[in-house]
Amino acid sequence: MSVSSESQATAAVQTTARVTFLPGDRTVEVPSGTTVLHASRAAGVAVDAPCGEQGKCGKCRVRVLRGAAAAPDAHERALLTAADLADGIRLACELPVADGLVVEVPETSRIQIRRKATAELRRAIAPAPATAKVLARVAKPSLEDADLRDDLARLRAALPQIATAELAAVRALHAALVEGDYTVTAVLDGDRLLGVEPGDTTFAHYGVALDVGTTTLVGYLIDLRTGEDVTHCVQPNPQASYGADVISRIEFAMGDPARVETLRRAVTDAVNEILATLAAEAGIPAERIYEMTAVGNTCMSHLFLGIDPLPLGHAPYTPVVTASLCLPAAELGLRMHPRALVRTLPNIAGFVGADTVGVLAASALRSLPGLRVAVDIGTNCEVLVGMDGRVIACSTAAGPAFEGAKISHGMRAQPGAIDRLSIGEDLHVHTIGERPPRGVCGSGVIDIIGEFRRLGIIESSGRFADLDDLPHLPEAIRARLREDAAVLVWAQDSGTGQDILFTQQDIREIQLVKAAIYAGIATLLEKLGKTFDELDGVLIAGAFGTYINREHAINIGLIPDVGAEKLTFLGNAAGAGAKMALISRHEFAAIQDAAHGVEYVELAGDAAFRDHFALAMLLAPGCEDDW
Amino acid sequence: MSVSSESQATAAVQTTARVTFLPGDRTVEVPSGTTVLHASRAAGVAVDAPCGEQGKCGKCRVRVLRGAAAAPDAHERALLTAADLADGIRLACELPVADGLVVEVPETSRIQIRRKATAELRRAIAPAPATAKVLARVAKPSLEDADLRDDLARLRAALPQIATAELAAVRALHAALVEGDYTVTAVLDGDRLLGVEPGDTTFAHYGVALDVGTTTLVGYLIDLRTGEDVTHCVQPNPQASYGADVISRIEFAMGDPARVETLRRAVTDAVNEILATLAAEAGIPAERIYEMTAVGNTCMSHLFLGIDPLPLGHAPYTPVVTASLCLPAAELGLRMHPRALVRTLPNIAGFVGADTVGVLAASALRSLPGLRVAVDIGTNCEVLVGMDGRVIACSTAAGPAFEGAKISHGMRAQPGAIDRLSIGEDLHVHTIGERPPRGVCGSGVIDIIGEFRRLGIIESSGRFADLDDLPHLPEAIRARLREDAAVLVWAQDSGTGQDILFTQQDIREIQLVKAAIYAGIATLLEKLGKTFDELDGVLIAGAFGTYINREHAINIGLIPDVGAEKLTFLGNAAGAGAKMALISRHEFAAIQDAAHGVEYVELAGDAAFRDHFALAMLLAPGCEDDW
Repeated sequence: MSVSSESQATAAVQTTARVTFLPGDRTVEVPSGTTVLHASRAAGVAVDAPCGEQGKCGKCRVRVLRGAAAAPDAHERALLTAADLADGIRLACELPVADGLVVEVPETSRIQIRRKATAELRRAIAPAPATAKVLARVAKPSLEDADLRDDLARLRAALPQIATAELAAVRALHAALVEGDYTVTAVLDGDRLLGVEPGDTTFAHYGVALDVGTTTLVGYLIDLRTGEDVTHCVQPNPQASYGADVISRIEFAMGDPARVETLRRAVTDAVNEILATLAAEAGIPAERIYEMTAVGNTCMSHLFLGIDPLPLGHAPYTPVVTASLCLPAAELGLRMHPRALVRTLPNIAGFVGADTVGVLAASALRSLPGLRVAVDIGTNCEVLVGMDGRVIACSTAAGPAFEGAKISHGMRAQPGAIDRLSIGEDLHVHTIGERPPRGVCGSGVIDIIGEFRRLGIIESSGRFADLDDLPHLPEAIRARLREDAAVLVWAQDSGTGQDILFTQQDIREIQLVKAAIYAGIATLLEKLGKTFDELDGVLIAGAFGTYINREHAINIGLIPDVGAEKLTFLGNAAGAGAKMALISRHEFAAIQDAAHGVEYVELAGDAAFRDHFALAMLLAPGCEDDW
Repeated sequence: MSVSSESQATAAVQTTARVTFLPGDRTVEVPSGTTVLHASRAAGVAVDAPCGEQGKCGKCRVRVLRGAAAAPDAHERALLTAADLADGIRLACELPVADGLVVEVPETSRIQIRRKATAELRRAIAPAPATAKVLARVAKPSLEDADLRDDLARLRAALPQIATAELAAVRALHAALVEGDYTVTAVLDGDRLLGVEPGDTTFAHYGVALDVGTTTLVGYLIDLRTGEDVTHCVQPNPQASYGADVISRIEFAMGDPARVETLRRAVTDAVNEILATLAAEAGIPAERIYEMTAVGNTCMSHLFLGIDPLPLGHAPYTPVVTASLCLPAAELGLRMHPRALVRTLPNIAGFVGADTVGVLAASALRSLPGLRVAVDIGTNCEVLVGMDGRVIACSTAAGPAFEGAKISHGMRAQPGAIDRLSIGEDLHVHTIGERPPRGVCGSGVIDIIGEFRRLGIIESSGRFADLDDLPHLPEAIRARLREDAAVLVWAQDSGTGQDILFTQQDIREIQLVKAAIYAGIATLLEKLGKTFDELDGVLIAGAFGTYINREHAINIGLIPDVGAEKLTFLGNAAGAGAKMALISRHEFAAIQDAAHGVEYVELAGDAAFRDHFALAMLLAPGCEDDW
């Protein structure tokens, strides 16, 4: 109950220390004992710490210019030379703050944002953000001035559009007027005053589009004056330590509010680091970011808001809320302006979330004429079919095979993962970061099955062929083939010291995914009385789609064979949707409208789906007669 | 900055203990080390602690029925008998909680609300609160139910008036639906869903009217279905320890946000105790109170909201805000429903606050025909003059003489204060609580001057008369009179062991107050081209007014002599205004409108005021020719 947490907060009376960071001359006050690394995030300077603050990588080097720094600890003595230490070099993740400390952050220690497939907008959008920054020259108070009695009234005299004011803005008003010599910048949400900044700061107006993925969080900092990307920042979703997929996180929460809050805080803390990093890159305090739009699947949306996803864990998989919500950043503990607008994009159903709404937005599926299908391949696979403005949707439990799960030597798309494979005289693999191979990621799996099918090593049924039927197969390849598996990498060449295999069971897993995707599309087309050959376009969303060998994907029937000219890859469409909603309130309204108009089809217990599924196991371009 | 407070909160990882209170069987979880007294407040049981938790009065007796209680400390051994201890009796303010403790609170230890002049409404108001409680029977989810996908959508199907929903309500929705078997009570602010309670709780709908006085806080619990008072609770304003009056508190804050927050938290903590007590008396959790209206003078209004009152400390005494603000309880840390509507009544100027707006509302000054004056006598004295719908206002620094300040033996209206005095053969005093006299409070001061004037002991000039001119004065009285003072109570009869005096200087102080009030009224009347004899009514607000001897007040010229039939006493009009605004949103709108229409007259440097003031020092019914 609030009393206990309140008491805990007040019980935590502890000393604080002021630390100054250069360049930028940012000073923050943090509790004593905080590491310089955490203080740097608070200051929005964001020192990089690749090893996760374990004091192992020695990357978070900073130089102490002034102040009484503690003696170096074992980690620092191990990773820093005597010359370093003499020069004041320390490790930010080890060094505790001391009051009056002045620390320089070398360029080499600044966070290098890990790039990933950014969410490309399909079309340019005219900026029309929900918030506006407006310059105001306010009359000074005087005893004569009977009509404009108070500061707020005088501000409203300068900006008559202000109808209501947030307390945070009122609290900041007087100091801003004095500091800005009665010139201030008002931040408005329509007729509501959100905040006040001294002087003219209309040139700096930023918002954040947030993609809350099950495994990865991506924040995009957008210049709301131009709608352009300024920078973006990627963080792993810390909820992963409570369960890799949504089901295991729902099971962890168990309907216990404290556990729901644990999951919510995990994401919030990571998002706060993203906000600090983005603000530092843009050279503004995070408190001057006034807008955020957030997307994620339905479970991630619930947990981001601290709503118990319990009912998503069992039939009828009913969400607590699908509509878009708007709340002040402070209510979620997000470290941007306390009254910043945080808006979630709407979800559609328990397993068709705001990320799929992003696909809907980025694909413009609802406004395109003709018959089109959009598929988002990830942990789950969501399918949207649009026909002349009508959109129906379903979700198939495609399973996380393409993220490496359930594949014997599968792994995520990380350094050491086989992401490309081709067969000539022997089998040739390429790994991410050209590291010794440790396993196979999604695009590698597609290549394996594609190449094996091309050479007849596996039959369209998915079975490994009899070697006797493959006389022309090069010897090096034959040597790799066993009854129920193929050796992709020999032990001596692998990064694990063991053979890296691809097994009969792995093929079955892929067949199940492929069949689920196909059956989902086929079922929706059937509801519309349509067939595959009537499709005017196929849109593939998800970073995954941009990496795979498209020819292989078509040949094994993972993607409908509609011809290259009808095939479009959207990339991270979820993030794109969040950006569109952030840049323009009109787009946001259109997206809400579009999401509301989607007809959801529940496949659980759908007879047609079962039939299509059974027939779709073949690893061939299309199956039945119409694929 | 938020990072440091956040870190402090998380740094405060400490164990908690669960304590159960009887009767009522309320269990709370609080940090270990909390006293049973504080836990009782958290549980809404509210044990009384007259000595302020010093372990001196022995009034907060509770009985430990179960659990491992710590050994009694020195205070307890001193105040409790062996029989008490054997019986499990302990002092709530001394005993720390232990996990599993079960404590009985005897009726004699329950808080006895200190009654004070309650804010009587002048007229009945039809209840039309801002919030509404509505019963909803919600359809259960099913796989077939394609249109009503989520919990919120199904609630909105039952209550189509819901347009938006607060996150707190959405978080509570699913559990409430399950617990209430899909019957829930929705709490609405217009088309906005504030909260959800399981089952039908429409019969319990409460709000709180809060009077934030400089010295006293009063909370009134109102049944919003009937508009009737349920109970009220009084607490001293803890800000008093930072300064007795508003100026000293503004000086304490010094424009330092941390000090402003200190003052804000002091009031918030006391208000949270009031909320816990009111809720306990009504038998509801404080989290089910959804509305509060608050009044106070302009400085108190600023500090209640955490707005720095700095500019009120110097000319032109410009408030930061005078308009009414509405915010969620959570933003102020108030322990009621987190999204409860907390609305402040508007202020008029730096020294004409929402408390005076309460006078405006309770007096209906704006809607009454003719010429009327309303005076609120307190630390300051605010004057309102209404003429056929027009209202002008001013504030006079009347000084806190009637609260005992600046009077040599003055004191507040507390036990031992002389509140009545009459003269026959000798001087007879009455004290509050019939305790031995310790000093004089406001109503006593009026009696002294009134009786002394009646007997000619002091002249209309305010000077003590020459005894030779008072031959018929009883000997016992003569014995009490010295050149520059009168002995009200002889040392042997006083509660201080010393003579209690009333001095020439004390008389001067009262003359200054009286002159300031008169001059304020006269100046406003002059602005309207009116005189005292044209007054159709005089309204006196403030608890003070209800206690004084009216005949004396008129005879010494403190109150205009307009005849009893034209004289009305309003009591605590500030609280009445807060109640009116709480009970009816239409009244709230009318009050805002009325406050906005008031014309403020600044007396600082007003020549007319200075002239009237000089002429108003006489202690006589009226002065100049027209009073």
